[in-house]
Amino acid sequence: MADISRRQLFGFGAAAVGGAGLGLGAGVVIARPAGAEQISETVLFHGDHQAGIETPPQAHTTFVGLDLVPGADRAALVRLMRVWTDDASRLTEGRGALADTEPDLATAPARLTVTIGFGPGVFRAAGLEDRRPSWCNPLPPFEIDRLEERWNDGDLLLQVGSDDPVSVVHALRVLLKNARNTATIRWVQRGFRRARGSEPEGTTMRNLMGQVDGTINPRAGSDDFARVVWNDGVEQPWMAGGTSVVIRRIRLDLDGWDELDRPGRDEVMGRRMSDGAPLTGESEFDVPDFDAVGPGGLKIIPEFSHIARARPLAPRERFLRRGYNYDEAPDGIGVSDSGLIFVAYQADVDVQYLPVQRRLAEADMFNQWSTPIGSAVFAIPPGCREGEYLGEGLLG
Amino acid sequence: MADISRRQLFGFGAAAVGGAGLGLGAGVVIARPAGAEQISETVLFHGDHQAGIETPPQAHTTFVGLDLVPGADRAALVRLMRVWTDDASRLTEGRGALADTEPDLATAPARLTVTIGFGPGVFRAAGLEDRRPSWCNPLPPFEIDRLEERWNDGDLLLQVGSDDPVSVVHALRVLLKNARNTATIRWVQRGFRRARGSEPEGTTMRNLMGQVDGTINPRAGSDDFARVVWNDGVEQPWMAGGTSVVIRRIRLDLDGWDELDRPGRDEVMGRRMSDGAPLTGESEFDVPDFDAVGPGGLKIIPEFSHIARARPLAPRERFLRRGYNYDEAPDGIGVSDSGLIFVAYQADVDVQYLPVQRRLAEADMFNQWSTPIGSAVFAIPPGCREGEYLGEGLLG
Repeated sequence: MADISRRQLFGFGAAAVGGAGLGLGAGVVIARPAGAEQISETVLFHGDHQAGIETPPQAHTTFVGLDLVPGADRAALVRLMRVWTDDASRLTEGRGALADTEPDLATAPARLTVTIGFGPGVFRAAGLEDRRPSWCNPLPPFEIDRLEERWNDGDLLLQVGSDDPVSVVHALRVLLKNARNTATIRWVQRGFRRARGSEPEGTTMRNLMGQVDGTINPRAGSDDFARVVWNDGVEQPWMAGGTSVVIRRIRLDLDGWDELDRPGRDEVMGRRMSDGAPLTGESEFDVPDFDAVGPGGLKIIPEFSHIARARPLAPRERFLRRGYNYDEAPDGIGVSDSGLIFVAYQADVDVQYLPVQRRLAEADMFNQWSTPIGSAVFAIPPGCREGEYLGEGLLG
Repeated sequence: MADISRRQLFGFGAAAVGGAGLGLGAGVVIARPAGAEQISETVLFHGDHQAGIETPPQAHTTFVGLDLVPGADRAALVRLMRVWTDDASRLTEGRGALADTEPDLATAPARLTVTIGFGPGVFRAAGLEDRRPSWCNPLPPFEIDRLEERWNDGDLLLQVGSDDPVSVVHALRVLLKNARNTATIRWVQRGFRRARGSEPEGTTMRNLMGQVDGTINPRAGSDDFARVVWNDGVEQPWMAGGTSVVIRRIRLDLDGWDELDRPGRDEVMGRRMSDGAPLTGESEFDVPDFDAVGPGGLKIIPEFSHIARARPLAPRERFLRRGYNYDEAPDGIGVSDSGLIFVAYQADVDVQYLPVQRRLAEADMFNQWSTPIGSAVFAIPPGCREGEYLGEGLLG
């Protein structure tokens, strides 16, 4: 009985959504039960830019690094990109892919996005080294790195996100099956945030240390966002409207972090753990005052705190953080294997990301509890229109 | 700007929920944005039965099997159960646990439940072998089993479910930290279903083969449910209101399954893949007619189809299926390591579950694509009231 009435409400609510705008100002809105919005919500696949970057982060995103099989050439890459483009455009609309063997799993996209990236190997395999952006290389080594080969690099990136974990798994299986003759899996990193609806939209995520993470991001839809994230195509014309992504797997020492009290944690971060406000401010989005000095003569935001080291020292030293938590089954006697999939998008890795990363690697109190164990860089081609395929500007 | 208006709507909607009932009949409901319901929704921890069984399945559930450390005795178990009971009662209400180092991660319970089980080792360690239910033992071996030690058995079970993956991870970390001196992790199985809101409530889950799974479950809240699931305490008085759980990790051969067409799959299951209807019926909940014969003289629902083998042949041969999908990173050249965490609750394993499992192991066409790789049985003590601890009827 309860089930039936929920179903009826669901059907009604979905039909009534169209009338919602009018009621809003009056303080009354036509019903939109939780399910109606989520099941049908789609993110447009086609466009100037790939989806999954400006898209507000979904609850689940899996990142897969792939290696091209020996002999995979430009023609093989074109074939793969055609298939992946077709798969992605169908799946993100809530339709089964061509020859989808489980189309019933495709019906709840829940903001499904598929984002594709090219590592250095794509340019080698395609014989297009001259079209490789200068920053499309592994990052230089940093003193703090404890990189494990199994989390590094890759020729291709698949980034699949959705608010529904089943939709992520189904889409990935379709995409990976269709890559079988061209590429093999190198690594899989599964990330999660709060479920859709667990927090008001636009809430900055907390990582598993409880830290508010991503406050200074450029705002989606703004000119600032476009300047920070989208490549202008000056160096490589085919990259106009594309971007780059740096994916760093960062293991967090939650046990060590537990030994630190709240004031100690606030000092390490330069922000209050409770609400993310800078130590010189009242609320999360207040601008930190890095010069302010406390009664004892010391800086209120310590010089080696995370935000003091991570702040841009030049206008171009900014990027979009769109990271995820990871939590895998612990080995042996530990109680957790947890951390961050740090994910940064920027028009140019070398100019925007690298200077900040260098400063963090040199000195950041937070390094004591965080260890980079994986690192990868990919060029993200621009989006495509209907009838085109992703990467056509490079491979076509 | 968009963020701000969403936040305002959120605040308004949450306050206005109280007025929702009245408008419903008239076809207009006060706004209840997706987030307002989910963030605050809690499942009562205290009660006659443990939560997480009759609770409609959450989007995420992690099952952890633990081994008691050598020397852990009845007193150590009492200490652990006291702490776990206190942790669970706080966390499920959206409060941090005592000495919670990340209380900010506890604020979105999203129907968080913590369910605790006792394997045979608890009775040994506590010197209470005479109080062990007769069915609280590993299952007998089946011909189809390919069990791997790393997925089998365990002295204690922690089952933590929530619609929010961060809440699951945080609760588990608290519980596992507090078990450090008493028990170590034996296995971790992380399960998922569709996100809350992706489907109308009450929709039967589809597993990663696309199969509608769990149609014949007893209905939560019914007398039938109580008879099937809750133990009557006749054999072991302390178990009254408790139950048992069988957890089987079943690897699915999705690649092999892909080679089968739709009619073939329908025959294997005895139900239509498209909507879960039995091959003799029109919709999912129609009663299958196992005697019906088709034009060719053969049974319409094949004798060795999954539902023909899984159906109860005696009234007591029923149990509650509350399983989850799993999907781990594949090794080597595969594209998926996927399957089912099959989870069955019943008052008595031997009388209710075992006869069905025996028939399935003997002959079930579905066995060709499914392989049990892990198996564990736990007694689930009844619930507790405020001031009591879980398992007090056994250990107290």
